[in-house]
Amino acid sequence: MLKIQRPYLIFTGDTEFVKTARGVRDWRPDQCIAQYRYPSNPIDLGLPEMGFAEAYEAGARTMLLGGAPAGGGLPEHWIDDICAALEAGLDIASGLHDKLADNTRLRELAEKLGRNLWDIRSVKQSFGMGQFERRSGKRLLTVGSDCVVGKKYTALALHREFSERGTSTSFRATGQTGILIAGEGIPIDSVVSDFISSAAVQLSPPAAADHWDVIEGQGSLFHPAYAGVTLGLIHGSQPDALVLCSDPTRTRIAAFELFPQPSLAECVRRYTDAARLTNPGAKVVGVSLNTSSYSDEDAKALLQATEDDLGLPCVDPIRTGVASIADAVLD
Amino acid sequence: MLKIQRPYLIFTGDTEFVKTARGVRDWRPDQCIAQYRYPSNPIDLGLPEMGFAEAYEAGARTMLLGGAPAGGGLPEHWIDDICAALEAGLDIASGLHDKLADNTRLRELAEKLGRNLWDIRSVKQSFGMGQFERRSGKRLLTVGSDCVVGKKYTALALHREFSERGTSTSFRATGQTGILIAGEGIPIDSVVSDFISSAAVQLSPPAAADHWDVIEGQGSLFHPAYAGVTLGLIHGSQPDALVLCSDPTRTRIAAFELFPQPSLAECVRRYTDAARLTNPGAKVVGVSLNTSSYSDEDAKALLQATEDDLGLPCVDPIRTGVASIADAVLD
Repeated sequence: MLKIQRPYLIFTGDTEFVKTARGVRDWRPDQCIAQYRYPSNPIDLGLPEMGFAEAYEAGARTMLLGGAPAGGGLPEHWIDDICAALEAGLDIASGLHDKLADNTRLRELAEKLGRNLWDIRSVKQSFGMGQFERRSGKRLLTVGSDCVVGKKYTALALHREFSERGTSTSFRATGQTGILIAGEGIPIDSVVSDFISSAAVQLSPPAAADHWDVIEGQGSLFHPAYAGVTLGLIHGSQPDALVLCSDPTRTRIAAFELFPQPSLAECVRRYTDAARLTNPGAKVVGVSLNTSSYSDEDAKALLQATEDDLGLPCVDPIRTGVASIADAVLD
Repeated sequence: MLKIQRPYLIFTGDTEFVKTARGVRDWRPDQCIAQYRYPSNPIDLGLPEMGFAEAYEAGARTMLLGGAPAGGGLPEHWIDDICAALEAGLDIASGLHDKLADNTRLRELAEKLGRNLWDIRSVKQSFGMGQFERRSGKRLLTVGSDCVVGKKYTALALHREFSERGTSTSFRATGQTGILIAGEGIPIDSVVSDFISSAAVQLSPPAAADHWDVIEGQGSLFHPAYAGVTLGLIHGSQPDALVLCSDPTRTRIAAFELFPQPSLAECVRRYTDAARLTNPGAKVVGVSLNTSSYSDEDAKALLQATEDDLGLPCVDPIRTGVASIADAVLD
């Protein structure tokens, strides 16, 4: 598993596409010491502006490339600055498609200085194969009717809620922004397919009986391209509890117009079926809907109607919080 | 997709573990020109013994490492011979865990001579992402109640049967022995998990309306470690027809004793459910059982009882052939 030293200096250079940086700043503000942007860049994360050495002196240990230039590549004109950050004592973490380690200059300098280059999308590790016996501790996994329906956000909100209630809990990250937020994790869709489930086992090790791992879901069982990743993650996670995330405004799978959205009842049935292979007690314990485009009144009516239909607590994590799902899980 | 030039010289060196060699010799005897083994090796594939240059003269174009030493590594004492085969004009194909291309001497010599080193377990290719629209042509996929239940064998037998009946057909290989038999294919469990389904799309391209691709299945939806691979392969394959393979003597998943074998009826239900996401007309068209440990009488009774139970033709490809499934598919 990746283990990134923190706190971060967040580097956005001259790009305005800073989704990753925002996710980390929003969920781990205490781990974000400073930002470094080029003078031309209007995007302000609201963090102190610092140089590389200054950030290191202030405690930063890793410079996070928190923005993605169009195309996802690593801009040549960032290389001098990244080298300077390495020289100042910082490791580098990147979620770009281009790997830091594929740049000879960066690789050789990092080796010489003994620094880490973290390419979050890349997994070199191989994963041993256990027997898939049940592990001690409790696990909750977010799953979706589709991709990009709030699985990461819902997991983070539940982890925070559990934590605030004094429950021992870990957020287990499976995607790049989640990994940068947690400082560790496994980018599950970058794992060789033979090892999806084994990687998920390793992601969430045995724990104390009353500890809850909250695991960030990926993909959807109803997505023609990614259902295999989702199923492997479910089997390896062996979740006791599943929280179903959905976007009620969609009629088709996003960007795959040939495929209809499944009904929530169908999602509950299929996810339960799938999860019970490795955890016979698995059940869906709540529903998380993104109601951002609804009026307060319409959102309230939709959440209530969904609760009534499915007999499960139904929340919008931003509009209502996730307390009712936490009640159902912890009580 | 890999495209290996044939015919083969089969190299077994000093190993007696020659399962891959046997599979290729049994299914493509016309593509196996000769064998090369060390004098100490008692295993005879029944092929002419030839040296490297002699085999090249006789038409061989690729030397297949057809045996796996204990551990799956590439023995140091084979390297001189592999170099000699490259010098003699042969490409090298290997299904070992150790990659040929990771051996500096082999890599540099192959580059210098312009030869190919085919590491069958390794996939460097990335796979584009289509819209998963239905492709022209027909597809049959073998699926299993477990791993190692005859999915490859059944697919090869059906491909041969279709071919003998004059049906236009291709065998589509997804594992290393299958790839060496077909000369091409994609080792689906070595693909990065994000691309399982897309790789399966690419494996079986659009074809004439009456052409049948017979696709080798992998893993099992009921296997805790590999179900993700299986599901991704199903979705990308978009099979019209599924043939369910099973070993009737097993009560547990092989080597995963915590997990029971599913019933055949449960397999039919779950595989049909899964396949209909990308092909609403998908159906299970037959069952293939390995009855090798049964008497003729008991096997006949079992096959008949299974046909009666499921309402599907049920064969043992070795004992009865696969004609009744071909009848059901082609009529």
